[in-house]
Amino acid sequence: MVFSIAYMKKIIVLFVFSCSYLVHAQQHPIAFATAKEFAAIKQALQTDKGLLQQSFQQIKKETDAYIGKVIDVPKPKDAAGGYTHERHKANYNLMFNAGILYNITGNAAYAEIVKKLLLQYAQLNPTLKNHPEATSSSPGRIFWQALNDANWLVYTGLSFDLVYNYLTPTQRKSIADNAFAPIVNYVTVDIKDWFNLIHNHAVWATAGVGIVGVATDNEHYVQQALQGADKNGKAGFLALIDGLFSPDGFYTEGPYYTRYAVLPFYMFANALQQTKPALKIFNYRNSVLEKALLTALQQTNINGGFYSYNDALKEKTYVSGELVTALAMAWKYYGANTDLLVVAKQQNKVLLHTGGAGISKALATNKNIPAYLNYTTLELTDGADGKSGGVTVLRNGKNEKLTSLIVKYTGHGLSHGHYDKLNINLYDAGNEILQDYGAARFIGIEQKYGGRYLPETKGFAMQTIAHNTVVVDEQSHFGGKEEVAENYHGNKIFSNLQSTACKVVATNTSDAYKGVYMQRHIYQLLLPNAEKPLYIDIFKNIAATPHQYDLPFYYVGNLISFNQPYTAYTTNQNTLGAKNGYQYLWKEAEIKKLKNPFTQLTFLNGKTFYSISSLQQDSAQVIFARIGGNDPNYNLRREPACILRSKGSNITFINAIEIHGQFNGTTEVSSNTYSQLSSIEKLQDDENYTVVKIFYQQQPIILIQVNNLQALQQHHSITIQGLKYEFTGAYAVYLNHKKL
Amino acid sequence: MVFSIAYMKKIIVLFVFSCSYLVHAQQHPIAFATAKEFAAIKQALQTDKGLLQQSFQQIKKETDAYIGKVIDVPKPKDAAGGYTHERHKANYNLMFNAGILYNITGNAAYAEIVKKLLLQYAQLNPTLKNHPEATSSSPGRIFWQALNDANWLVYTGLSFDLVYNYLTPTQRKSIADNAFAPIVNYVTVDIKDWFNLIHNHAVWATAGVGIVGVATDNEHYVQQALQGADKNGKAGFLALIDGLFSPDGFYTEGPYYTRYAVLPFYMFANALQQTKPALKIFNYRNSVLEKALLTALQQTNINGGFYSYNDALKEKTYVSGELVTALAMAWKYYGANTDLLVVAKQQNKVLLHTGGAGISKALATNKNIPAYLNYTTLELTDGADGKSGGVTVLRNGKNEKLTSLIVKYTGHGLSHGHYDKLNINLYDAGNEILQDYGAARFIGIEQKYGGRYLPETKGFAMQTIAHNTVVVDEQSHFGGKEEVAENYHGNKIFSNLQSTACKVVATNTSDAYKGVYMQRHIYQLLLPNAEKPLYIDIFKNIAATPHQYDLPFYYVGNLISFNQPYTAYTTNQNTLGAKNGYQYLWKEAEIKKLKNPFTQLTFLNGKTFYSISSLQQDSAQVIFARIGGNDPNYNLRREPACILRSKGSNITFINAIEIHGQFNGTTEVSSNTYSQLSSIEKLQDDENYTVVKIFYQQQPIILIQVNNLQALQQHHSITIQGLKYEFTGAYAVYLNHKKL
Repeated sequence: MVFSIAYMKKIIVLFVFSCSYLVHAQQHPIAFATAKEFAAIKQALQTDKGLLQQSFQQIKKETDAYIGKVIDVPKPKDAAGGYTHERHKANYNLMFNAGILYNITGNAAYAEIVKKLLLQYAQLNPTLKNHPEATSSSPGRIFWQALNDANWLVYTGLSFDLVYNYLTPTQRKSIADNAFAPIVNYVTVDIKDWFNLIHNHAVWATAGVGIVGVATDNEHYVQQALQGADKNGKAGFLALIDGLFSPDGFYTEGPYYTRYAVLPFYMFANALQQTKPALKIFNYRNSVLEKALLTALQQTNINGGFYSYNDALKEKTYVSGELVTALAMAWKYYGANTDLLVVAKQQNKVLLHTGGAGISKALATNKNIPAYLNYTTLELTDGADGKSGGVTVLRNGKNEKLTSLIVKYTGHGLSHGHYDKLNINLYDAGNEILQDYGAARFIGIEQKYGGRYLPETKGFAMQTIAHNTVVVDEQSHFGGKEEVAENYHGNKIFSNLQSTACKVVATNTSDAYKGVYMQRHIYQLLLPNAEKPLYIDIFKNIAATPHQYDLPFYYVGNLISFNQPYTAYTTNQNTLGAKNGYQYLWKEAEIKKLKNPFTQLTFLNGKTFYSISSLQQDSAQVIFARIGGNDPNYNLRREPACILRSKGSNITFINAIEIHGQFNGTTEVSSNTYSQLSSIEKLQDDENYTVVKIFYQQQPIILIQVNNLQALQQHHSITIQGLKYEFTGAYAVYLNHKKL
Repeated sequence: MVFSIAYMKKIIVLFVFSCSYLVHAQQHPIAFATAKEFAAIKQALQTDKGLLQQSFQQIKKETDAYIGKVIDVPKPKDAAGGYTHERHKANYNLMFNAGILYNITGNAAYAEIVKKLLLQYAQLNPTLKNHPEATSSSPGRIFWQALNDANWLVYTGLSFDLVYNYLTPTQRKSIADNAFAPIVNYVTVDIKDWFNLIHNHAVWATAGVGIVGVATDNEHYVQQALQGADKNGKAGFLALIDGLFSPDGFYTEGPYYTRYAVLPFYMFANALQQTKPALKIFNYRNSVLEKALLTALQQTNINGGFYSYNDALKEKTYVSGELVTALAMAWKYYGANTDLLVVAKQQNKVLLHTGGAGISKALATNKNIPAYLNYTTLELTDGADGKSGGVTVLRNGKNEKLTSLIVKYTGHGLSHGHYDKLNINLYDAGNEILQDYGAARFIGIEQKYGGRYLPETKGFAMQTIAHNTVVVDEQSHFGGKEEVAENYHGNKIFSNLQSTACKVVATNTSDAYKGVYMQRHIYQLLLPNAEKPLYIDIFKNIAATPHQYDLPFYYVGNLISFNQPYTAYTTNQNTLGAKNGYQYLWKEAEIKKLKNPFTQLTFLNGKTFYSISSLQQDSAQVIFARIGGNDPNYNLRREPACILRSKGSNITFINAIEIHGQFNGTTEVSSNTYSQLSSIEKLQDDENYTVVKIFYQQQPIILIQVNNLQALQQHHSITIQGLKYEFTGAYAVYLNHKKL
């Protein structure tokens, strides 16, 4: 983590506020919304017939069911998915909703629910030791992991603040001392190192402690939250904002985890804005919190599913509750934004907050909300200073015709990062085409390891072989060691995202394997009159000694054809390897020694055909694999991959990824079911140039790539097959000898 | 096939019409619609802003692109999916659309398209021999199979009739003699046996020849169409209506093929109604054509997908073109029907026909069309006389909450039938839960065996082991021989579909295997306050000598848990067997000898959990299998099954199928993820009674089933565990000792 100027600024900021270090009782409620804001929501509800009203009625209905009921605050016992876990989770949501309803309606019955539960927690919490099901390195007390205790702090802190005025001073003290203090002390003292991490868990923990601080007028808590347990600014909320986001707003763990972290970031920022407006937290680091939200939204499939790189569950979309909260806060602090309305419409609810009221009103008056976000080609740096690689999303088409190819050359991404340098993923027509497995997890299902990440996440999903990138000698990048991987990142050599005809991103790393230089160029070509792009993928691997290089393509769909005969293991099959993820793959078929280095795989996904044409070395191998080996508990999806395997010192994989044709089972009419790419030739491949000739739709494409990184801006003159090509820059692509 | 009274009636009917056997020129157009009807459509288009207008504009746009263009009529060369196949298919559709547009708009440019194409076919067709890609027993001339030639006759015949008045007498004669006669003669003479089959191919062939007859004023053709090639009434269109439908309208090949056959049935019936109204073809056999359509629609999943039993492709739904045609005709001849509007709305187009105009108008005036068909519990007999078994669909719930369990005890269903007596399939919440594989086919994709049925359809999908029914000694029912299977059908012992609390269907067969009596009772219980049913499945197998009995459950979804330890083949796996479909299954895991005869499998499909609890014999086996062995070409989907295997003379499988809980990956909240069924006991199982005790939701369910088929209506008194139970009938179910 590099702080430099940002760190300096923060120290100054903190100085300003720690001067006013004294306990003072301020107005309540304040942490979530003020009395004035609640009055505005109440006012809006008089006329609102949209999502605000609907959300209010829904929450009211759910909460009313608890009025006058005895609500259980059980002794912690079960892992995620089990009764006590789900009950405590339901309790904090119930308190939060009841607290909001109390402020909107003035009905004391809601405040009673919160009060009774808080007083029960004041009984329970002092008795708690580590949770009996705790298996993580940061065990919880109320829950199996401390992260869930931090969730509890956020919502229970807000709830306390919401009913502050309903409680007697004695009750307030009892709750502060007995419900909150044991948990706050636990996270800030007993597992202080965890609280001080730069990690999404710490975002929740600092937000939780900070919100409890605001709610209970405990400035010590607030300062711990802001500056870390030791209040030295090396940890805490501001350090997290500094450390977890790049200047572009890229969240180091990736978009799936942005979704999770964005709630405590926004929720505590809102409490800070209400109580310490001079901090201008929403403007902090050039409004990085806004960038964080918008870039996470841009990193979704058109169905709202977050890109599944790093640990990610594909069923999670931007309709998840955390983003309902973030949207309302973003609307309040950053103003109107059509993309937020697109998402809010899908969420079909709003936060009962002034931002939520604003969204509801905007949706009511604007009937022409687009069906999809305004997705555009995107490039984001990673790292606090923006110098730890990044991610590029090459895009083409609009709405349901959007094609997105993701090139990932970020840093590792903390404990949820995968060993996937220079990985690519492809989405098209709303579907995943070349997938990242995501994470192996059945969230909330107790039978599946308590709903936690399954061992196959580390064993398979994180490993390099689970990705569409090169594996050297069947080892994962960085030896599969997080502590090593955290020190490195991929590099962008250059990118050109301006041209419609030819977008390029060039990446490399010398760090994933000792002694191996890896370089991947992805070209997105949009040929004249074409609707869908053609991708050219040149993956160079250079080493002084021979290695085995595996490049998998996790294609999603039905294999339609392969252009060469292969040996299928039809009555008996074995796993592909014994470790580093290979043990999870069945070897279904293979070509042990390619006779023709040009291979072509066509598959069908939904109604579209896709072909991957590749030029390998002579005598290379092709392996048809399927996930599912060594998985007795059926934790993994049985999905296929086609692995290109070459042995040598310097190996260049040249691939073309084509989107073609249409399948319609209802009309029985299919068109362009065949690839239109008939050959790939490698005319030159050395330290200066890689020159590739491709016949596509019966026309030659010549692609000249400059490999000498010192010559990327120079003028080049090169004769190919008797024709002279002249250009300036890092590459040139010619269709029918005309420059694209 | 039993004809009896229906056959007599038909002979009388035919007598009436064959008396008027003479060639006479009548008004044209007549086969598809008359000039008067076209005038009505033209009139409707003046004001229609709905599907009629939209369909008209769409067809106009598509057809206008061909005006003045040279359209290829290539020499037949390619199989389905290939250029010449798709071109000829496109040509007949184009001629039909252009013919309709000519009659609506009066624009001669449309008639020119048809005329030119017809004259080209008049050049081509006399030169044709069997298609070079012909591999079926009924080769085609223009296409690889005669069926497609029959499709061509239907549409080209209609097209000729539509431009009849635009053609000169010389042109008419040339087309009749050279375009039509070679194909008509081919199907009625060269492959007469095929033309005379009782099979969907013959429906198309007779409709094609009949429509060409109507169009070209050739009564000989019409009579061949009606009465068979030899005009003796043993074959032909009326024999097909008699032979292919049960009195309930069940089409012997199943709903997927009803979809296909319904178009020529309705299209030729329409031409007959226009030219031979006295035949009252739409009232024939108590309006069996209407029943055929409505029962096929009832046999769909809520997404419109036809039940996938027999050869069926799951991507085909009721939006397919054949049903657009059938709907318009049904509307015209049988009148308004809300279910038709539900389907038409999904189809989002109508036929340019008076029926289509009527549907469009009804949709425009009725804005509250339900989203789903009005699905109800359904029972249909099979066989021309309704005495060849049948199918029962037990249903519960409405709309997206519909649950449907299909019990199949039909006849074989001709060449597309499967060896699946007493099979069950379950659909719930819009998804297939216990699936029938359907057929292995990638329709229209040339790379996949020319788009034809793949060998794996016969090899796997048809075999008994591919179904949720019992396989004896690893042999398929009837030895897997169609000619044997065609002689038999399953039997319904009785059913009770009236009770909401307990619906029952009891089925048996002694024919599937020599010496084995098989009997399956399915009980659909809806317990007090339950939303979803609980199914009890008692499958008895009785033989004099020991056998191996396999009962697979092709569950769709992720395995969540199994209640007993099993041995998983994690690094090496083998196929389950060598023939009869077993060779297509990998043995992933097994329990070689059950210690506890009570097994329980829980799986997740979509957002719902399902559990299959089973009581087997001691020392039975459980096999976890996956489709995909011996499938080097990736023709089959890699989907799982759990197979219960018991050995002995008399084996009773008792299963309970439970629908429970909810998974929500977005909110992370799951509920009722565990089965609530804790035990199954078999208290008695003999020739008189099977008595089962189940603990479900901590309450005992006692189910008493009468096995003595002579005693199904008698009064029974039976003491179970010291309690006396008295009831009259074939079964009784008690919850907490109270009769359901």
